[in-house]
Amino acid sequence: MAQEKKQVEAITARDVDFAQWFTDVVKKAELIDYSSVKGMFILRPYGYAIWENMQAILDAEFKKLGHENVYMPMLIPESLLQKEKDHVEGFAPECAWVTMGGSEKLEERMCIRPTSETLFCEHYANIIHSWRDLPKLYNQWCSVLRWEKTSRPFLRHREFLWQEGHTMHATAEEAMAETEQMLNVYADFCENVLAMPVVKGVKTDKEKFNGAEKTYTVECMMHDRKALQAGTSHYFGDGFAKAFDITFTDKNNQLTHPFQTSWGVSTRLIGGIIMTHGDDNGLILPPKIAPVQVIVVPVAQHKAGVLEAADGLRARLAAAGVRVKMDDSDQSFGWKAAEYEMRGVPLRVEIGPKDMEKEQCCIARRDTGEKTFVPLAQLEEAVARLLDEVHHNMYAMAKKNLEDNSFTAETWEQVKEVLERNNGGFVKTKWCGSLDCELAMKEKVGVSSRCMPLEQSGTEGVCPICGKKCTTDIYWGVAY
Amino acid sequence: MAQEKKQVEAITARDVDFAQWFTDVVKKAELIDYSSVKGMFILRPYGYAIWENMQAILDAEFKKLGHENVYMPMLIPESLLQKEKDHVEGFAPECAWVTMGGSEKLEERMCIRPTSETLFCEHYANIIHSWRDLPKLYNQWCSVLRWEKTSRPFLRHREFLWQEGHTMHATAEEAMAETEQMLNVYADFCENVLAMPVVKGVKTDKEKFNGAEKTYTVECMMHDRKALQAGTSHYFGDGFAKAFDITFTDKNNQLTHPFQTSWGVSTRLIGGIIMTHGDDNGLILPPKIAPVQVIVVPVAQHKAGVLEAADGLRARLAAAGVRVKMDDSDQSFGWKAAEYEMRGVPLRVEIGPKDMEKEQCCIARRDTGEKTFVPLAQLEEAVARLLDEVHHNMYAMAKKNLEDNSFTAETWEQVKEVLERNNGGFVKTKWCGSLDCELAMKEKVGVSSRCMPLEQSGTEGVCPICGKKCTTDIYWGVAY
Repeated sequence: MAQEKKQVEAITARDVDFAQWFTDVVKKAELIDYSSVKGMFILRPYGYAIWENMQAILDAEFKKLGHENVYMPMLIPESLLQKEKDHVEGFAPECAWVTMGGSEKLEERMCIRPTSETLFCEHYANIIHSWRDLPKLYNQWCSVLRWEKTSRPFLRHREFLWQEGHTMHATAEEAMAETEQMLNVYADFCENVLAMPVVKGVKTDKEKFNGAEKTYTVECMMHDRKALQAGTSHYFGDGFAKAFDITFTDKNNQLTHPFQTSWGVSTRLIGGIIMTHGDDNGLILPPKIAPVQVIVVPVAQHKAGVLEAADGLRARLAAAGVRVKMDDSDQSFGWKAAEYEMRGVPLRVEIGPKDMEKEQCCIARRDTGEKTFVPLAQLEEAVARLLDEVHHNMYAMAKKNLEDNSFTAETWEQVKEVLERNNGGFVKTKWCGSLDCELAMKEKVGVSSRCMPLEQSGTEGVCPICGKKCTTDIYWGVAY
Repeated sequence: MAQEKKQVEAITARDVDFAQWFTDVVKKAELIDYSSVKGMFILRPYGYAIWENMQAILDAEFKKLGHENVYMPMLIPESLLQKEKDHVEGFAPECAWVTMGGSEKLEERMCIRPTSETLFCEHYANIIHSWRDLPKLYNQWCSVLRWEKTSRPFLRHREFLWQEGHTMHATAEEAMAETEQMLNVYADFCENVLAMPVVKGVKTDKEKFNGAEKTYTVECMMHDRKALQAGTSHYFGDGFAKAFDITFTDKNNQLTHPFQTSWGVSTRLIGGIIMTHGDDNGLILPPKIAPVQVIVVPVAQHKAGVLEAADGLRARLAAAGVRVKMDDSDQSFGWKAAEYEMRGVPLRVEIGPKDMEKEQCCIARRDTGEKTFVPLAQLEEAVARLLDEVHHNMYAMAKKNLEDNSFTAETWEQVKEVLERNNGGFVKTKWCGSLDCELAMKEKVGVSSRCMPLEQSGTEGVCPICGKKCTTDIYWGVAY
């Protein structure tokens, strides 16, 4: 590492190399650092603070809906992982295995949790006996580990932070309602908090979670017109309950298996925020989760009274509940403006001697670059209004990107043609429902199925591969 | 597992078998469940909620003092762990080792973090270059793993939740000030939040953290007169910085090593709360971290208007920011009273038809059992006052236990005699500072050194083993 002083360095332009732009941004905005363990990243204070803000909002929402947090062990004995066949087949190939404890070889090796269905099921078998014990609505905040071959900051970590909800219900209907409810929680969170519009849908059997009967997903479109699966909610039926011998006595005194769901989002969402909203100057953070919502920058700060005036604005905004900082370092004004732009701070408040005379300050928006002069008396009100406007504008821009790059096609050749012409995007077709046709799309066009949208047109058409008549709408795209 | 309905079962009396009482309480109050992995426990909703309340208070305090949260990888390559000699010697014997990733044997095995000094040092070497980069004040909330041979709920887990602060400073003085500051944060937290009086002190070289120059500790006395080390704060000097080649250019343009601290508390504190405050009826939770501060129990709830009145009280308390629940289940009043007593809920608010006539409710304190009738109009005020009184009374009772069982002695025979007569406690003696005498105390009396209290008398005396003249005060006791 060079001993050079940190500068606001140039960031690769998005249109030149989107992947490099992404890496530049996560490094230069100090979201992430690399560690000596391949595929495992350090979440630095600025990156972790985004996650903390996301956690606080989601956790409150989960609790409002009756969920409780728990903590399960991080290790799963191999025999426990193997209890549900589809599940172990999906996860065993990417498990990290603990084989030694201290200096002793373990009798049975254990994997670091790639997900915790098996641990929750074992616990549920112990604590669920009667219909009075249901529903169980548990959630866990933790890290999980999947031994991926390739890795990218936020998008694919060997270890990542997430939450995993695991619930048990007396009836299939209740479990299905929970699955759908949590999908909607994720969709609302993406749209109303992260300013990321979503397509809600159901995964095909090929793309669903290992062991689930049905996987719901929210899919987002990134600036480069690729898809990001932002969150998933799974319905398990009573498959795991049978494999783990979880039973309860129902109201008719019958021994019955309960019905199960699980649902999760991860730090991957931070990757989504970056790739949805960022521009060639760096990050643009949604105001509701930005660690710093307003940066106060004094102009000509050596002049009498400027620092005091700037600090006064900072204190007023802090008192109003705004996440605000002031930069009174000896860096130049230009350096500071560029630095906080790169870090995606939604609003910059400037105040200098001239502003003080006029009893005003200048507020610059990160999303549009627009500057407004605001009377000092109206500071709090103006900042609240502008933060709200920034959120809505960010959402509108992302929505436009989604709409401008969503297409409809009838044949696989059309799908290929439109994606090549547009350099990516989502294409909606009909689908006959067969795995063969899904695989053929991958082979012929290079796209995977994203989801069957919940909003189905109900019209009849033909499968773009086999030409059979069918009604199901499905989205295709290239995904992260 | 029997399919029986949960009852408020009898708890072993503390004086009959304190260890069994402890196990009964953690199981029956549903704080913890056992998992199929030896030594790894499940934190159930009620137990985890206590931790969440503790986290929220500590985290706010850390941030107020300028600390930032980060997240480091959970795996440490063996070569990285080995960089600091004392550190690896202490921790290697209790590491769990990952040797396989997917189906491939790893080139270098990695341990699951037992603590993260090595990872923080590696990162600090990358990001610290100039005096402008200091101090770095980082903290991490995570779980760590230590392959202990024996385990007990909360007191000794193979995996436990904790926070670990790791800071870097330009001077030894600053680092020492941080070490002491964080010890005081822990001491204040124990006393003002958990109602657990502490003895602040310094560990002997034998008892200090592996690799530290100096370890500060807060020691608490449990109801059974044994000691619990509640939190520690370590000063590292520049030992790790040298081992990890962490340097910065100081204000005089000299390349220098920074000075380091680390400090942590864990879910062990929950064990401390249970063993400090609990009684033969179960838990008694300090109001500031109790998941439920007030339970509202309707009396004769089938009578007209009772449930509505009870729910009205619940709603008023919730609006006042109290963590409150109502139990309107079909269990008997007696069952409910015993259940929430066992769960340690600080206050029980009762309301029935007679109370409604008199426009009053009855509030029962968990700590003293005392009941007060309170006019409905004064509900919020009375609850706030009583929660405060419960806290102070719990602290006073624990303080009395500490004082009544703290002794002074001059010879090792006296130490032995007083501890046998009193069945445990803390004994203060002088100490010459030699490891041999410390080991001899263990052998002859069966006690370990708890700490050299920060409050030193300064008087001269003799070492209880070798009889040399010395001035240092030290506490001895049996510890968890």
